[in-house]
Amino acid sequence: MSATDVTRQLAEFVVASHWRDIPPAVRREGIRGLLNYVGCALGGCGDEAIALAIRVLTPSFGVPQAGIIGRTERCDMLNAAFLNGASANVLEYDDTHLPTVMHPAAPVAPGLFALAEARGASGAELAHAFILGVEASCRVGNALMPHHYRRGAHITATCGIFGAAAAAGKLIGLDPVRMNWALGHAATQSAGLVESLGSMSKSIGVGNAARNGLAGALFAEAGFTAAERAIEGKYGFAAVASDTVDLGKITEGLGERWEILGNAYKPYPCGVVLFPVIDACLELRKRIDVPVDKITGIVVRGHPLLRERTDRPVISDGRSAKVSLQHSVAVALLHGAAGLAQYTDAAVGDPAVQSLRAKVTAEDDAAIPVEAAFVAVRLDDGSSLSEHVKDGRGTPGRPMSDFELDSKIDELAAFGAPFVDTPALIAAIRDLEMTGDAAHIMHMTTPV
Amino acid sequence: MSATDVTRQLAEFVVASHWRDIPPAVRREGIRGLLNYVGCALGGCGDEAIALAIRVLTPSFGVPQAGIIGRTERCDMLNAAFLNGASANVLEYDDTHLPTVMHPAAPVAPGLFALAEARGASGAELAHAFILGVEASCRVGNALMPHHYRRGAHITATCGIFGAAAAAGKLIGLDPVRMNWALGHAATQSAGLVESLGSMSKSIGVGNAARNGLAGALFAEAGFTAAERAIEGKYGFAAVASDTVDLGKITEGLGERWEILGNAYKPYPCGVVLFPVIDACLELRKRIDVPVDKITGIVVRGHPLLRERTDRPVISDGRSAKVSLQHSVAVALLHGAAGLAQYTDAAVGDPAVQSLRAKVTAEDDAAIPVEAAFVAVRLDDGSSLSEHVKDGRGTPGRPMSDFELDSKIDELAAFGAPFVDTPALIAAIRDLEMTGDAAHIMHMTTPV
Repeated sequence: MSATDVTRQLAEFVVASHWRDIPPAVRREGIRGLLNYVGCALGGCGDEAIALAIRVLTPSFGVPQAGIIGRTERCDMLNAAFLNGASANVLEYDDTHLPTVMHPAAPVAPGLFALAEARGASGAELAHAFILGVEASCRVGNALMPHHYRRGAHITATCGIFGAAAAAGKLIGLDPVRMNWALGHAATQSAGLVESLGSMSKSIGVGNAARNGLAGALFAEAGFTAAERAIEGKYGFAAVASDTVDLGKITEGLGERWEILGNAYKPYPCGVVLFPVIDACLELRKRIDVPVDKITGIVVRGHPLLRERTDRPVISDGRSAKVSLQHSVAVALLHGAAGLAQYTDAAVGDPAVQSLRAKVTAEDDAAIPVEAAFVAVRLDDGSSLSEHVKDGRGTPGRPMSDFELDSKIDELAAFGAPFVDTPALIAAIRDLEMTGDAAHIMHMTTPV
Repeated sequence: MSATDVTRQLAEFVVASHWRDIPPAVRREGIRGLLNYVGCALGGCGDEAIALAIRVLTPSFGVPQAGIIGRTERCDMLNAAFLNGASANVLEYDDTHLPTVMHPAAPVAPGLFALAEARGASGAELAHAFILGVEASCRVGNALMPHHYRRGAHITATCGIFGAAAAAGKLIGLDPVRMNWALGHAATQSAGLVESLGSMSKSIGVGNAARNGLAGALFAEAGFTAAERAIEGKYGFAAVASDTVDLGKITEGLGERWEILGNAYKPYPCGVVLFPVIDACLELRKRIDVPVDKITGIVVRGHPLLRERTDRPVISDGRSAKVSLQHSVAVALLHGAAGLAQYTDAAVGDPAVQSLRAKVTAEDDAAIPVEAAFVAVRLDDGSSLSEHVKDGRGTPGRPMSDFELDSKIDELAAFGAPFVDTPALIAAIRDLEMTGDAAHIMHMTTPV
């Protein structure tokens, strides 16, 4: 294995992979990733950014060959990939590849469903291509970390495009030479800035990764040539993208280790460091036999990063609530939930939530790992209750169960696309391997 | 002037600029740049890469609101911008901003003509927006040189997108806040690798710069927000794109110095270092009263860079001929020309050209500047002739005259779109300032 032709090696691996080579645990994680993707897009499809993007792009809608999750509009594959990629990421409720903090599904999955609708694909073919696309994205990301992200590249977009191209190329059956070109077209289109996070512009980066990766595969299919050493070449992607490059990470153990097994799913639509705190508050709420207005104070102890990132007692809108410890504690104790409905502008302005937020204080304890937290509640009768969470939900030690993931999808659909028959949709995605027509998933996500 | 808000300052400059503020020499260069752009697209529109791109993108063609130069197809503005940007650059016959070696027109101009067709614009409005777009692209490029390009970023695409966004934003009348967002959308979409040069993939980078810059302006117009400090922010474009950043170059002397005055036009579709050699050969041919088969040897003396880059006596196709000293000398002496017809595969295979190529030798002389060359020809009667060119055509000391530029456009149109009434088209572009409807230029470039 030489680092002088990693683009070709990656292309050849993707082309040669057989579904029968994919271990059961990897297949299962592929299905869970697709489920989370569809759920996030259902939740995000009504966001203002998506509505604006559709308005801007409508004059550029081509043949109505692909659907937009949760919406009535139909359009060409490239625009569908852009809009579904943007929609799946807009709520910050993604899957997360922990080694790179990349969200792989939003760039990789949209082109596959668009192809399934426009050209046909079985469920197993789609799941297989998705798993390989996640593998390509994450491995390119691994090779560039940590400098690539630290410098300001939005890795979900910049590396996601490689997976989008690889996955689409797999589904349309590119040969090794054309798969290599597809990766080359991905490399020359790779873009996205961390600076854009917090604005709608983030969605352009993620949407483009989905759209342009698919486009790269379609251009390659037509015979459009690309640089063969697009990643490792002297003036290639790696040279431009990072000062800490380890190209071996793209190819080492291909087909033996699977990156998708390091993919986690957010249990709450907020900052990762808040997960164990929310877990503890939800447990405490079950044990508090009184109205929460009997609470006189709440103390949260955690890793210093928790306070550094989320000690925000005063917030103004739903977006800033997503990084507020005080808000997350208050809603978890008051509502017994920390879902999409708890991070709206309305929830932030609720006087009961405001009152409880004011009672929350944070303490640093460097001995506590970032996946853990202690929460203690004092009541007005002088008693107190406390809860310790060692591994927050959605962290490697406590991954989201299938039931938890299903419940999350149900919440997302109810939030953004309440017309969807969620139980049927979940069942269909869980049975994806067995269907000959993956496109029916898309039909289940759109209003009749 | 502070470097902490250069994105905003650039946006405000573009928004506030009035046509009456543009000096006559700058207006004239704007018109020349647009003329060269239209000519290059007419020459490139039949290239295999453009035909393939149209085939791939046809299902994604939206409302037929904009034309593709030299072709019958019509499509939405975004696809038109992509295809015309790709077409204008595919022959390597561009304008060249000498300080950055960027080709500014191919990304900047296409969106403007698409907007003129879809929404209407006067000739002066279009020329004004073009000049400002070139200014934005080149200034962002200046701020990142030399490291940005040296590392492998294809600056025509990576910085061209800023000009595409600024120009389109100017034409649609964005306010300063929205213009700032448009530049932010450009920043997060900036992409393109030098590694892709030499393959068709290069055209995706340049086409995307035109398309995505226009898209950035349209998204901003609709209220789609972006990072306000997209260029200079901690995780912004400059941090990602170069280790040698001088943000002051984006704003210093805005409205006083104009980058378009540093824009040159290639006189021959080949490597820049060959220009003085070809000039000398064309002069010699006028003085040789005999058939060129009387030539027994040709010696070229020039800067060492000339031999290093172009000493290629054996070549196989038109693409490699563009960097062959021997081929360029042979066709200039044999055909009295070094245009598109001289760099085809057929020209390379012509036995008379092959025979003459074999008689050319190169000598280094470090005392000769790169803009100059000596060529000496020996004849079979023992006599010899020589020619010295101090400033090659298309270099700063000897810019292309209007007549030479018109002749180039005529050659390009004859090569790629012979149905065009070239004299009428040239006259219309030269008179662009006086027309209320810039779209008629596009109509003159497409078959009836």
